[in-house]
Amino acid sequence: MADSTATLSVGLELRNATNPDAVGSPATQHGYSYALLNLLQDDVQATLLHPDSTLQDAFQPADLQMTENTWAGFIVGGITAGGELDSEDDVTRQKCEALVRQQIQWAAHLGLTSVVFTAPEKELGLNFPRVVNRSLSLLAYSHAWLRVVVKKDDNEAWKRWNTIRTLGGHNPKLSVALELGPDLPDELFLRQWTAEPVRTVILPTTSFIANTKGFPVLKKSHQVFLQKLMELNVQFLISAASLDESLHKGGLGAYQQYIRHLHRMRPELDIVDQFATGYHDYLQSPLQPLMDNLESATYEVFEKDPIKYQEYERAVYRALMDRPDTAVETVLMVVGAGRGPLVQRALQAAENAKRRVKLYAVEKNPNAIVTLRARKQSEWGESVKVVHCDMRFWTAPEKCDILISELLGSFGDNELSPECLDGAQRFLKDDGISIPESYTAFIAPMSSTKLHGEVTSYKDLEHVETPYVVKFRAVHELADPQPVWTFTHPDRRVGGVVGIDLGSPNFNIHNTRYAARTFVTATDSLMHGVAGYFEATLYKDVMISIHPKTHSPGMFSWFPIFFPLKTPLHLPANSSVTIHFWRLCDARKVWYEWTAIPGSAKGAEGSQQPPIMGTASALHNIDGRSSWIGL
Amino acid sequence: MADSTATLSVGLELRNATNPDAVGSPATQHGYSYALLNLLQDDVQATLLHPDSTLQDAFQPADLQMTENTWAGFIVGGITAGGELDSEDDVTRQKCEALVRQQIQWAAHLGLTSVVFTAPEKELGLNFPRVVNRSLSLLAYSHAWLRVVVKKDDNEAWKRWNTIRTLGGHNPKLSVALELGPDLPDELFLRQWTAEPVRTVILPTTSFIANTKGFPVLKKSHQVFLQKLMELNVQFLISAASLDESLHKGGLGAYQQYIRHLHRMRPELDIVDQFATGYHDYLQSPLQPLMDNLESATYEVFEKDPIKYQEYERAVYRALMDRPDTAVETVLMVVGAGRGPLVQRALQAAENAKRRVKLYAVEKNPNAIVTLRARKQSEWGESVKVVHCDMRFWTAPEKCDILISELLGSFGDNELSPECLDGAQRFLKDDGISIPESYTAFIAPMSSTKLHGEVTSYKDLEHVETPYVVKFRAVHELADPQPVWTFTHPDRRVGGVVGIDLGSPNFNIHNTRYAARTFVTATDSLMHGVAGYFEATLYKDVMISIHPKTHSPGMFSWFPIFFPLKTPLHLPANSSVTIHFWRLCDARKVWYEWTAIPGSAKGAEGSQQPPIMGTASALHNIDGRSSWIGL
Repeated sequence: MADSTATLSVGLELRNATNPDAVGSPATQHGYSYALLNLLQDDVQATLLHPDSTLQDAFQPADLQMTENTWAGFIVGGITAGGELDSEDDVTRQKCEALVRQQIQWAAHLGLTSVVFTAPEKELGLNFPRVVNRSLSLLAYSHAWLRVVVKKDDNEAWKRWNTIRTLGGHNPKLSVALELGPDLPDELFLRQWTAEPVRTVILPTTSFIANTKGFPVLKKSHQVFLQKLMELNVQFLISAASLDESLHKGGLGAYQQYIRHLHRMRPELDIVDQFATGYHDYLQSPLQPLMDNLESATYEVFEKDPIKYQEYERAVYRALMDRPDTAVETVLMVVGAGRGPLVQRALQAAENAKRRVKLYAVEKNPNAIVTLRARKQSEWGESVKVVHCDMRFWTAPEKCDILISELLGSFGDNELSPECLDGAQRFLKDDGISIPESYTAFIAPMSSTKLHGEVTSYKDLEHVETPYVVKFRAVHELADPQPVWTFTHPDRRVGGVVGIDLGSPNFNIHNTRYAARTFVTATDSLMHGVAGYFEATLYKDVMISIHPKTHSPGMFSWFPIFFPLKTPLHLPANSSVTIHFWRLCDARKVWYEWTAIPGSAKGAEGSQQPPIMGTASALHNIDGRSSWIGL
Repeated sequence: MADSTATLSVGLELRNATNPDAVGSPATQHGYSYALLNLLQDDVQATLLHPDSTLQDAFQPADLQMTENTWAGFIVGGITAGGELDSEDDVTRQKCEALVRQQIQWAAHLGLTSVVFTAPEKELGLNFPRVVNRSLSLLAYSHAWLRVVVKKDDNEAWKRWNTIRTLGGHNPKLSVALELGPDLPDELFLRQWTAEPVRTVILPTTSFIANTKGFPVLKKSHQVFLQKLMELNVQFLISAASLDESLHKGGLGAYQQYIRHLHRMRPELDIVDQFATGYHDYLQSPLQPLMDNLESATYEVFEKDPIKYQEYERAVYRALMDRPDTAVETVLMVVGAGRGPLVQRALQAAENAKRRVKLYAVEKNPNAIVTLRARKQSEWGESVKVVHCDMRFWTAPEKCDILISELLGSFGDNELSPECLDGAQRFLKDDGISIPESYTAFIAPMSSTKLHGEVTSYKDLEHVETPYVVKFRAVHELADPQPVWTFTHPDRRVGGVVGIDLGSPNFNIHNTRYAARTFVTATDSLMHGVAGYFEATLYKDVMISIHPKTHSPGMFSWFPIFFPLKTPLHLPANSSVTIHFWRLCDARKVWYEWTAIPGSAKGAEGSQQPPIMGTASALHNIDGRSSWIGL
């Protein structure tokens, strides 16, 4: 059971209420934390549209005088946008627009925290989106919700939302109030919403069913979707026709009690999510362990991973068992030893395997060396040699049997494991073993309004061309990940010290990569970037992975990596998108470049059209201008 | 004949030359002003791609030692990008890329002003575009040209260029070197280039034909296209196989002489273009005549228009002749009289029509009033009354028969003629005449890399949401203009002083407009914005127009107006784009909002698909946030 102290906001709408008291009092009384009230009554619009009337005649919100100041913070204002905003007649249209404007100004005057527009369920004209987006610029402190109804046999709801927010240039003041009908559409059309800024979930009382005792409960399909949405920290709103409505037992309070019950009963967070608390959808710059020295706290966090070191120990054990059991000791080298967790595990593996070993712990960080030397003295003894040196430039006194490293980033090679191991493999015996022996990067197109908003909020080029490490939450993967490239160690193509031959224009060419992968999306969607993962083979079948389909259970050392797109790409249902990805190098740095090119929608015969080159997003991070990893 | 003192730069390429002297000396000798030389010879690439070779082996540009310093400013460097940039093999691809990088660095070292990439004629991979765009970031002071061959039966050349510059994010360092084959494609595919940054036109000697005496000349089709390109200030390059080549009489010098001849013989500029010298593709903010007082020099320029005032005089004459010839004098009012050109013309029309008139000259600009009073005293006498007042707030002593104004902007209503005349029509007799009696705004989708570059160079929102007055040159209209809306005067819907009733939320609602217009484009294109024009009916069939198809010959008072798009829209051949346009008002200002939504390509049966809403460009200038005209 999840933390029951988490607060959950559940509001009430009484659709026949005409003043704050009429909804505010019963809401409070039945345990609701806020209320929704339309700022105008429906008949006002009829008055307004009479040819002789002016706005002054129509807009007389006398019922909305707030009888207590407290209502201002309690009431969310419903905006009547009317069906005539897209009238052919200029004056009718403009009267409706002026009426919206007056409601917005009225809401600002009252100090309401939020206003709610209701998206038309039929086809959109362009004036409704324009008026909604214009209203956002009039709202200084308030937010706007767009109420969108999700129901069976309507797969267009997301498209209407997408049009409105695209026309508004992705204004962060606009969020979604998702109203769930009694029957939900296919799960494909629900998943789209997990990448959107869903602020509120609206549940009409008619979307509840009665349990055996007559009290309101939700169908299983609704419960599953709500639990997913609860992870996004949504609030709720119960919408009833009137105070006297009695569809279910238990009165108006029973609905909020049931929602709070569902909230309490949601599944426990798994260990990775517990570890990630506070990091969901938070952008972190990837580590630069080669250029910077990691801090003690960073080591401390990663050393606690319950899975990673267990798998390394298994891999070392298996590798040792595969080496001939000779009289001479087996030479192990841990390169990038940090504060010693791999040294500890390697020694344990040797003990389990009953092998005599000599172990070199090579580390360039002078601060970590202090810890290593202390542990050698207190724990490890003479079989461990602590070497303070950058592995790329070390002259080893002998060659080793097993070269152990943990230099992987979220994208596998993005913390320069390939370059480091090119240097380190100089002191690996010809028949020696590298742990890890290979790693593969994976990509998938993804949607996330939240992450797009974060990277564009800086209004510069740099932030939209930088990969970030992110624990995904309000993210929707648009297709399954595909592998882009693999690095294998030792790389016997690398002779001598090529990895260090900085003067050569051939330098590091063998560690460049390029791949293009085509993905097909099932529903209409807006692609905001590329999700990146890795799988690594430590030794034979000992693997670690952060690929969603093969993720090592409970391993928390790596979150996925997010490569943004500057401009979101609209992908129609059943269309393709080709992602091009490069890993590039010069003498001082390694960087990624990427772009995405949409293809046409699938033809009737299922044949895929070629990508439409003119609609390519620009190349990101040309020449590493915005982001790179220093050698 | 055009100004023969204009300088024209014509260069020479000798395709078999291997060092600067070999091309530089003959180029100078035969009257060329620069030369193109490949920085590497073809066989270098073969050396490089041998598995055992390194870049050092391959890149030995000994032949490129500049024998004289002067060659650095004379030589343009050809870059060998090779056909292997899109090889499947990582190392081959990277060797080719490193070779390009060395050439670019070499060109920078030599201080060459430009380098030339040659676009592949077959389908593009993504590495060629990436390497070209990466090179731009390595070129500190030099520019790059992309050599694109235009020839019969290849309609894809523009699409290849568009892909390359789109992937590069529209980098202004990259321009086009357009090579014309012996036969040109359909004019549709030539016109595309007029909106592009064509810096150089390359003419292989094989694209020339021999005249009756055996000297090189160009076909008529080439001449027509070149004359269009010459307006864009291009330079030329003659490409010959070798020094000894003798396809035509007259030697190598004959080609540049012929080009210079064509340049001298190009048609005289018409009066509008002469007037516009220095203003082509230059962004001007539209006037704000209501908020600002025009300067004397501004009046001076516009008073010189040879056509506008002639048409106004015709209109006033016709209107006077249509009024009953009674004993009492006809009352004319010129509102916004400026320094008096319309007063003068109206008096002339009255004289021609032999009508006695009393004329009120109403002007709000206190500086212009000085001139009006002086002219009344020295030229016009007692029949003219000079009134210093804003026409919207004037209390006229009597009503007039004919209300004359020249308040039109490039988009018709964009200098607030509707609002001004709403105020002024209070003192027009019920059967009185307004000159102009109506005006209509027109829009067309357009492409212009130059103008897009200008508005985005500021890297802010304001400049991409502001309309500009521009004399178009490097602009390609993607479809014929269509009317969006019309204003007619007097507007009898406007009762009393509604136009001035600033307190009313209904204020000025009747002057708001909305229209959506769909255009079909013939070729693939990149839409950068919307071109705006107007047609005005002064009186009955007396018209003035800046619509390209109906432009009043010789009238120079108005250039077109350009509404930018933030992000260029790619439009496939035979597809549609729907432009939505609004004219909106509040109590203090009037502004435009606009957006464009591409549709699908035409189906086989010619049926047009609906617009793809998710690909809409964002609404521009929401709530007038970036640009507006003050009331």
